[in-house]
Amino acid sequence: MYEGPVQDLIDELARLPGIGPKGAQRIAFHLLAADEIDARRLGEVITRVKQAITPCRRCFNFAQGDFCRICADDRRDPAQLCVVEDPRGVVAIERTREYRGRYHVLGGAISPLDGIGPDSLHIEELLARLGDEGVTEVILALNSSHEGEATASYLQDRLAGRGVRVTRLASGLPVGGDLDYADELTLGRALLGRRDLATG
Amino acid sequence: MYEGPVQDLIDELARLPGIGPKGAQRIAFHLLAADEIDARRLGEVITRVKQAITPCRRCFNFAQGDFCRICADDRRDPAQLCVVEDPRGVVAIERTREYRGRYHVLGGAISPLDGIGPDSLHIEELLARLGDEGVTEVILALNSSHEGEATASYLQDRLAGRGVRVTRLASGLPVGGDLDYADELTLGRALLGRRDLATG
Repeated sequence: MYEGPVQDLIDELARLPGIGPKGAQRIAFHLLAADEIDARRLGEVITRVKQAITPCRRCFNFAQGDFCRICADDRRDPAQLCVVEDPRGVVAIERTREYRGRYHVLGGAISPLDGIGPDSLHIEELLARLGDEGVTEVILALNSSHEGEATASYLQDRLAGRGVRVTRLASGLPVGGDLDYADELTLGRALLGRRDLATG
Repeated sequence: MYEGPVQDLIDELARLPGIGPKGAQRIAFHLLAADEIDARRLGEVITRVKQAITPCRRCFNFAQGDFCRICADDRRDPAQLCVVEDPRGVVAIERTREYRGRYHVLGGAISPLDGIGPDSLHIEELLARLGDEGVTEVILALNSSHEGEATASYLQDRLAGRGVRVTRLASGLPVGGDLDYADELTLGRALLGRRDLATG
């Protein structure tokens, strides 16, 4: 056991995903050896991030005020709506520079084993946006996991007959892979080659 | 790129040892999803640790005041002095419950390639302690790396002729391994089976 504050730091770091006890100790020693300014900056960004970031009131992406940067940008086309599981999807699609519409962040994917049903996701808000914003196309950009597939299938049913084109990313993504891990080129091509699921 | 505070957090996390960009993103999402109290606690322990921890004035172990817990404990035997590279060594030896003496933390090991010579380490302070505290045995508990071996060899020369028994941990530690990774049993045996290098 280290002196209280050092052990506290190691214990807190070891609770983070992907960091074991040895990794936590290594990081703690790094911080103790680092400039006070560097260590303080990390502490402050962690302390600050939860207060500074709220869900966008329109699309549930990360936002610093009421609306995220994309919703606040009036050059984005409101007729196209790209549905992603979480903000990682937004960043992954933005990196392709192939998309100029808006997003809708579901907050996850349907996963009955984890107790996540459609009611846990921002699906009613998605449906409400269709009329409010004059959406003509909904692009389903979900991960190609079982949960992502189940969610796409559910959304396809819910979106049918509402007068919007429903598309999803072209295959080309590795099966079972996270959107977030795809390189820009692959993801950009998958976006351009998206195929119709239904025309409502 | 994420909203400013999120990207700041990812960037700061990615500067830590053993954490890549994907790991940093994963931790950032974990913190954003965690209770505000949990995230704030991590931020605070990081911010606090540099102010709360100073080197022990006697042995250079981590301390919360002038002296570390071990130096402040008058039940510890001042006649035995265990020399370690850094506070990890103190914790590793303490875990064996085989040692009741004091420590001296060098602050590293001699490594000419990294520009670390004897003057960069707390060696003069070690020599001063011999007479001040009535030390009769110095136990060299350095890592069994090239740097640790070089440091042990250098200290053996400096300690010769000073009327103290100089010992080092018994072999049994894996060659090239860090002290810190040894299990308690192995390290405890290595301590009990320590051998004399010189009797001054």
